[in-house]
Formats: sequence, C-alpha cells, structure tokens
Amino acid sequence: MSRQQIVAGAADMMRRRGLNATSIREVAKHAGTPLGSTYHYFPGGKDQLAAEAVRLSEEIVATLLAEKLRQGPAEGVAAFFALWREVLAGTEFKAGCPVLAVAVEEADHPEALKASAEAFRAWSKQLAASLAEHGVGARRAAQLATLLIASAEGAVVMCRAQRSIQPLDDVAAELTALLEATIAART
Amino acid sequence: MSRQQIVAGAADMMRRRGLNATSIREVAKHAGTPLGSTYHYFPGGKDQLAAEAVRLSEEIVATLLAEKLRQGPAEGVAAFFALWREVLAGTEFKAGCPVLAVAVEEADHPEALKASAEAFRAWSKQLAASLAEHGVGARRAAQLATLLIASAEGAVVMCRAQRSIQPLDDVAAELTALLEATIAART
Repeated sequence: MSRQQIVAGAADMMRRRGLNATSIREVAKHAGTPLGSTYHYFPGGKDQLAAEAVRLSEEIVATLLAEKLRQGPAEGVAAFFALWREVLAGTEFKAGCPVLAVAVEEADHPEALKASAEAFRAWSKQLAASLAEHGVGARRAAQLATLLIASAEGAVVMCRAQRSIQPLDDVAAELTALLEATIAART
Repeated sequence: MSRQQIVAGAADMMRRRGLNATSIREVAKHAGTPLGSTYHYFPGGKDQLAAEAVRLSEEIVATLLAEKLRQGPAEGVAAFFALWREVLAGTEFKAGCPVLAVAVEEADHPEALKASAEAFRAWSKQLAASLAEHGVGARRAAQLATLLIASAEGAVVMCRAQRSIQPLDDVAAELTALLEATIAART
C-alpha cells in the first residue's frame, strides 16, 4: 500500500464522513497499513494527512480543468459538473467533496484548512483565466468563477440531502446559460 | 433553560463543529441542563435533537424570507445573503449552516437528514414562488431558486476556508444581476 493510496483513502473517508469522523487509525485499517508506518509517513498526524488529501483532490480537479478548459470555458465547466455528477451517482449520494469537508468543521487542523482555501482559490483562478481569455473582464471573470465553484459545491450538498441529482442539474443548466450569454456578449 | 434553548445550542454547535463533533452531552453542558432532562426532552437522542436544530434553522430563514419576499424577490435574496454575511462576520468565519452540516457526514441520522432535505426544499419553494409571481416561468423559477440556495451555501463554505467575505460578495453580485435581468426580461 503506497503513501499515495493512504492519502486517497483519507480523501474518500473525508468526503463521506467528514473530517471529525476520519481518524488515522481508521484510514490505516481501511488501507491495510500498519498504524506505525502510517504515522511514519505523516509525522504531522491527522492535520497533515487531511491537508494532503485536500491537495490530492485539488490536483485531480485541476488536472481535469486544465485539460478541458483548453477546449473553452463551457467545456471546462461541463466537465466540472460531470465530475460531481459522477461522484454522487457513483456513491449513491453518499460522498461529496473532501475540500468542503475540512472547511465546515471548526477544529484544530490549520494545515488542512489552508489547503482547502488554496484548492478553492486554485480552481477559481483556472476558471477565471479561461473566461478572461474568452473576453470576459478580469473582475467579472473572477466573480463568475467563484459562482461556478460555490454553486457546484452547494448543489452537491443539496443532492446528498435530497438523494437526488436535480439540484446539480438545475445549477448546471443555469450556469451553462449564464456562461453562454456572458461570452456571447463579449465576443 | 428551555427546550428551545437546547435546540438552539445544538444548532450553534452543529454549524460550527459539524454533526459528528456535536454530542448531547456537550449540548447539555453548554446549555447548563442536566444530561437526564436533555434525554427526557429528546427521547430520540442525537438524531432527534439534530433534526429539531435543522427545523429551527429552517424556520428562522423561512420567516425572514417570507417577510422580505413580500417586497419582491430582489429584497428576499438580498436579505438571504445579508443573513449569511452576518453569520460569518459575527463568528469570525467560524460558523456556517447547520442544515448543510448534517448533509455532509454519512452516518446514522435519518431524521436529521430528512429535515435537511426539507429545509432546502422549503427555502427553494419560497424563492421560486416569489420569482413566479414576478413573471418567471415555473421551471425556470425552480432552477433559479436552487441556484440561489446552492451558491449561498457553497460560498459560505468558501468564506470559512479563506477567512474572507469575498466569495459571498462575488456570488451575491452575480446573482443580483442575473435576477434583475431575468425579471426585467419577463415583465
């Protein structure tokens, strides 16, 4: 069991149960790794492991966005929503976003919280840069990018509560239309 | 210490720490109530207490929305965002939404989860009804209402992570403009 697989296991536990219910002991057990070697890998304990789990999630989404945004902002946004649809459908609405998980529980995990803020910022920047390349002014592009991420994150939570994909579909439909209108108006 | 105050204390703990870190024992201690009488009030245990905390939060928001939406959808939406701004500013970004809190942790709390789904649904219906009254078609009104709630919920989490009100302000600016344009186009 590689270090990377332990981090992925932690991310999966966090996006399902939240940070508080995720323990190094459980992650090690889940990964079939001796507890001692897990502590050896992560001397900073749970905060370090959670931060790495957040950074792994950031990377996965950032890689997808970088690839799809090359075809244009609409394609990037469609891929972003498709990713969340897959997460929800693939887990029967039992998993959400590990980046969100660490931000909704006040506790002593400064490194993980910092990683969470950075993940949101990184995704926003990618989306905003793509919008700016397609003629949207810098300030407006930043606002729209924040709206895209906030509404996807919020919709994923609503889907989990309602055991339905409808909220995500509603939000995707609204944002796709808004994006098209905004880009059409600028070009 | 009234029953209602215990429920309010639970809601506050949930919106700060999440559901997993909220225990009946801690809520009772926080409220200065003997543990026994807390269990007496809530025979269904933590799930019942959490569900009541969610319903209390639903009511507070629903009452505000009902009052402000009488002046129009823009006023209702402005009040909705102002409420979240107050929550964040008043707690130094340490509290969010207790309705969201119960939906992001997979665990055995069916009653609370059901209450969470109902709260999101109730707020959406109120906003959608107001939009429909102002000439927006029923399907579009439902979509826009979902977007409003999802983006506010998501932005609150981003604000907590980034210790900044910027994400909420960005989202509010975008949605205010979208709402104005949509209503202007229909009337």
